[in-house]
Amino acid sequence: APNIVLISRAFRHQFVIPDFQGFCKYIEEFYWRCKNNTEGKVAGYIPQLARMNPDYWGVSVVTIDGQRFSIGDTSVPFTLQSCSKPLTYAIALDQLGADLVHKYIGQEPSGRNFNELVLDYNKKPHNPMINAGAILCCSLLKTLIRHEMTLAEKFDFTMNYFKRLAGGETIGFNNAVFLSEREAADRNYALGFYMRENKCFPDKANLRECMDFYFQCCSMEANCESMSMMAATLANGGICPTTEEKVLKPDSVRDVLSLMHSCGMYDYSGQFAFKVGLPAKSGVCGALLLVVPNVMGLCIWSPPLDSLGNSCRGVQFCEELVEEFNFHRYDNLKHATNKKDP
Amino acid sequence: APNIVLISRAFRHQFVIPDFQGFCKYIEEFYWRCKNNTEGKVAGYIPQLARMNPDYWGVSVVTIDGQRFSIGDTSVPFTLQSCSKPLTYAIALDQLGADLVHKYIGQEPSGRNFNELVLDYNKKPHNPMINAGAILCCSLLKTLIRHEMTLAEKFDFTMNYFKRLAGGETIGFNNAVFLSEREAADRNYALGFYMRENKCFPDKANLRECMDFYFQCCSMEANCESMSMMAATLANGGICPTTEEKVLKPDSVRDVLSLMHSCGMYDYSGQFAFKVGLPAKSGVCGALLLVVPNVMGLCIWSPPLDSLGNSCRGVQFCEELVEEFNFHRYDNLKHATNKKDP
Amino acid sequence: APNIVLISRAFRHQFVIPDFQGFCKYIEEFYWRCKNNTEGKVAGYIPQLARMNPDYWGVSVVTIDGQRFSIGDTSVPFTLQSCSKPLTYAIALDQLGADLVHKYIGQEPSGRNFNELVLDYNKKPHNPMINAGAILCCSLLKTLIRHEMTLAEKFDFTMNYFKRLAGGETIGFNNAVFLSEREAADRNYALGFYMRENKCFPDKANLRECMDFYFQCCSMEANCESMSMMAATLANGGICPTTEEKVLKPDSVRDVLSLMHSCGMYDYSGQFAFKVGLPAKSGVCGALLLVVPNVMGLCIWSPPLDSLGNSCRGVQFCEELVEEFNFHRYDNLKHATNKKDP
Amino acid sequence: APNIVLISRAFRHQFVIPDFQGFCKYIEEFYWRCKNNTEGKVAGYIPQLARMNPDYWGVSVVTIDGQRFSIGDTSVPFTLQSCSKPLTYAIALDQLGADLVHKYIGQEPSGRNFNELVLDYNKKPHNPMINAGAILCCSLLKTLIRHEMTLAEKFDFTMNYFKRLAGGETIGFNNAVFLSEREAADRNYALGFYMRENKCFPDKANLRECMDFYFQCCSMEANCESMSMMAATLANGGICPTTEEKVLKPDSVRDVLSLMHSCGMYDYSGQFAFKVGLPAKSGVCGALLLVVPNVMGLCIWSPPLDSLGNSCRGVQFCEELVEEFNFHRYDNLKHATNKKDP
Repeated sequence: APNIVLISRAFRHQFVIPDFQGFCKYIEEFYWRCKNNTEGKVAGYIPQLARMNPDYWGVSVVTIDGQRFSIGDTSVPFTLQSCSKPLTYAIALDQLGADLVHKYIGQEPSGRNFNELVLDYNKKPHNPMINAGAILCCSLLKTLIRHEMTLAEKFDFTMNYFKRLAGGETIGFNNAVFLSEREAADRNYALGFYMRENKCFPDKANLRECMDFYFQCCSMEANCESMSMMAATLANGGICPTTEEKVLKPDSVRDVLSLMHSCGMYDYSGQFAFKVGLPAKSGVCGALLLVVPNVMGLCIWSPPLDSLGNSCRGVQFCEELVEEFNFHRYDNLKHATNKKDP
Repeated sequence: APNIVLISRAFRHQFVIPDFQGFCKYIEEFYWRCKNNTEGKVAGYIPQLARMNPDYWGVSVVTIDGQRFSIGDTSVPFTLQSCSKPLTYAIALDQLGADLVHKYIGQEPSGRNFNELVLDYNKKPHNPMINAGAILCCSLLKTLIRHEMTLAEKFDFTMNYFKRLAGGETIGFNNAVFLSEREAADRNYALGFYMRENKCFPDKANLRECMDFYFQCCSMEANCESMSMMAATLANGGICPTTEEKVLKPDSVRDVLSLMHSCGMYDYSGQFAFKVGLPAKSGVCGALLLVVPNVMGLCIWSPPLDSLGNSCRGVQFCEELVEEFNFHRYDNLKHATNKKDP
Repeated sequence: APNIVLISRAFRHQFVIPDFQGFCKYIEEFYWRCKNNTEGKVAGYIPQLARMNPDYWGVSVVTIDGQRFSIGDTSVPFTLQSCSKPLTYAIALDQLGADLVHKYIGQEPSGRNFNELVLDYNKKPHNPMINAGAILCCSLLKTLIRHEMTLAEKFDFTMNYFKRLAGGETIGFNNAVFLSEREAADRNYALGFYMRENKCFPDKANLRECMDFYFQCCSMEANCESMSMMAATLANGGICPTTEEKVLKPDSVRDVLSLMHSCGMYDYSGQFAFKVGLPAKSGVCGALLLVVPNVMGLCIWSPPLDSLGNSCRGVQFCEELVEEFNFHRYDNLKHATNKKDP
Repeated sequence: APNIVLISRAFRHQFVIPDFQGFCKYIEEFYWRCKNNTEGKVAGYIPQLARMNPDYWGVSVVTIDGQRFSIGDTSVPFTLQSCSKPLTYAIALDQLGADLVHKYIGQEPSGRNFNELVLDYNKKPHNPMINAGAILCCSLLKTLIRHEMTLAEKFDFTMNYFKRLAGGETIGFNNAVFLSEREAADRNYALGFYMRENKCFPDKANLRECMDFYFQCCSMEANCESMSMMAATLANGGICPTTEEKVLKPDSVRDVLSLMHSCGMYDYSGQFAFKVGLPAKSGVCGALLLVVPNVMGLCIWSPPLDSLGNSCRGVQFCEELVEEFNFHRYDNLKHATNKKDP
């Protein structure tokens, strides 16, 4: 079978996207095309998000060999929100192994709203990309990894991981958002208590601390550029393209990409997997992490959201990209030669 | 990006699996290992299935360049049952285009049982791999493609498609199964009437005829060998490896594989996508179609089913295969070199 | 305890409503007040119902000692629709006994829509006042009572019962409605097949015949006057006030009234029990059977329906009546003397 | 119509149950018969309930004219648990009026488990007899009635109401149960947060305080005797039979009895209304409040519960009682003379 590793070795004196400049022309074209899309509404459930300028619009690309391109508002900070979910899941996998993590969390699309008060038939949250699963994932990080750490230390530990994923680039923390999230989190508390009732959490988990930790992860700040580096680290099998640090094991990355593929876009996940066919994760901040395995990572950011909670411009951008290039999971079938290979 | 088409051209004087004999040794090993698995129960809702010998066990492989290997009961005929669903969906896509088909049928995993009495929030069946969606798919074939055809002619038309997918190999029809299926189909009739109530069907659809046509598609007969050829045709972008006939457009195949990937294994689909990461479709006959895109197609057949309706040995075989070889969707990440590349 | 039977004996030389003329003045007043209510829409799922004049408006009253009053369009025929449900249930109880009937049908409000595709946790329909339960009730009448009867004979048998309940007054059959109902019955067929799948029906039940029988019961015709006599027969413990024939056993009537009380008004049943506190049954024909036990029966008829399927004027009339008179189940509490006692 | 008020006036020199001694013989007989029923399990979710002696068994009766009879463990204290729900609902009705209360809480049986995470289609809890509705009821008491009261004062205010309902008899508070309830209340907190998210609570409601207040109401203590007096006060239209104080308005009592009738016995409510036909409320303490309007109140207490949460002996006792006497809502139909009239 055409092993991509072998191949890329064969090409090793060449960049994965040989004509990067030509490729960026397309990115620019998609950028301007999507700018006309003025649909959607900025998330309004906390004031810090509601005040976000709806015109912000940025796209950053990092290839696995470190070529970069950014256009638009790519250095404006925003909080990760649900884009933190694949990251905390990745840390949990890397530190605890998939077997342990999936004793607590399922791997199925839920077929329900992202914050639905419902567990799967094993009384576990459906997957780590929805709120229930991400809260549980945070409880694993908090409780099962070096339990002696205080909440402050565990926060540092996690932020440090995020930074390494981002090649040392900007990762901050927005305390106002954290406090507001915690305040406005009735559904998340309902989920937390419901899961505790169903004995979903590991022994010794402190619900209040786990919830706080979850809100803190959601309130970390990045920008398009640093998040595109995170996506590129995932595209590159866990090794950061610029620092060359091995941040995650390839097995952990495989599992993260599998679930981003099937569950990363809220209720639009199935259609996104069908049309775009790439692992992605969106958040109510308007960001969309997109991974083209073995090629590149992208962050696409525009605050206005559609009714399912995905960035309107973000989804359009992904569809334009895959319309033009052969990035869809099943695009590279033999005899299918109608799309561009960058 | 390492375009697999280019690559395989580079290798064009070579087979896609260079050491096919060595590879078949592994297949044999997995075969004998799974033979010990005596879990599961043969489907019992109609006598023809209930009488099936639980010891039947066969595996057939066809690569996209036509190399073949079979072991076990690979020429015993069985009815396609749900394995017909990706095929009728493929024909519908190929003849009508994805836009028209998906005006009637969704693309989301349902998060529910395969025969649940439920539609998605657009009042459409969730996807063409569950009963509701497959019934609707049959109604599109029956009603929208050359409407003047009688049911007999449409049956011939479809069987002919199946045969071409199978490179002209054995495709039959089991009339006893058809009659029993129609007799035992309370849930399917309930689904049919429920969808008609919700105006899911195209105008002019005749429910009774569509149901009959659906049961007929489920009652077509094949064996491991002919079904592995069908899987290989899908793996090869729609061109049959032996006849070299272009049976399906690559775009249709892409869409079929996308939905087999996310929805092909009943309620186990999410976990299967996570662990195996390959497009597959199982049926209550005990067969499992498995596609390794651009490499090969397999049919794995063993009648005893687990509680979710998938062949016990079939699922185990897939897991063994992917444990050993780098076939998982996200296995070929750079820097991940622990698995064999056949 | 103040046994109402004893009491009424004490009053036996007097009518149950001593000043019937005075009482009828109130009925007239409510009638005119409700006439101003022009809300609601006539049921439109079959043409025969859709063509019904929305201005028809009639109220008929029969006391248990046979005093009568009618105002408005009380001799215009309409089909019984769901108003037949308590009647077929009553016949089933009377002929088969409550134990046998409730082996097949529950006694709980469903908390769901009247035609929801759902069974209770025993895999039985929730109660005989919703479609699923009424279809099952018809299957009991058809299958378990003198099984040798043809469908035609069973229809006669049932119609004859209806007539005796109505004191021999007008009961007809509307064949156009029957044919249309059968044509437009996708949900009911879905319910039928779903129940057959769940083995809800008695052995030897023929689904098609049971469905036909159900549609025939729904298509029987009456008018306000004859239906008010049926209600009065129920109010009078099963003895028709005019013919003095004992049509139903008191135990059967008790059970019918219990379930009319809790489940007779579709999704409004709970609120109706709360506000009006009397057994009632409405149908999409716009009729509303109302029973004041030991006092009288009413039929209130006006085709326009609210969003839950109850006659708009019908519900208002009941609320006006109970506002003025002490008919609510829990009105006659000691020390509560603010309402009129007719 | 035979107005029960008039009647009882007619009998005013006589007791409502003329042969009370004879009647008590029957009560004793049912008592001993039910004592043989050793089914069920004591509630175990908090240690204080789990430790309760499963052999406790008591029945107390108080007629509306103050005749009393007790047998068994009728002075052993137990916490009210869900038996407090009709009482807090009664206070809310009495102080705020039905219109205001039912702006926040529905009147429908839920068709679901008593603690299901679900609201009705108006986004209100289904009724005040299930946890969600009772929590909301407590929030109304806490927030809308004399808002300036501290939690301590509101507790006194409520306990005082309970005492007056019980004619000044034993009402205590079990602080250990309160603390345990609060500790073990994951589902209730989940309900609370879910309702806050859906804006179910009145403005200014403090969720934490409302929850505490709810747990406090559940943790009040009474015994069979004092609770039977409460039931008798309800039977007597709100006037305590012994103190003759008018504790509740008759309209409030009517509404309480209506909802006890339809929703008081958890998921058995429909069947209980069908078979017993009397307003009742059970709690996990094993108590069952039973009201025979205008005749008497009972408290039946035995800790072992069936799978739906009702006292096993309690339910049996009610069924024996109604088997023998004409207390069922629809028993007193004319011409039905087969049951005893005490």
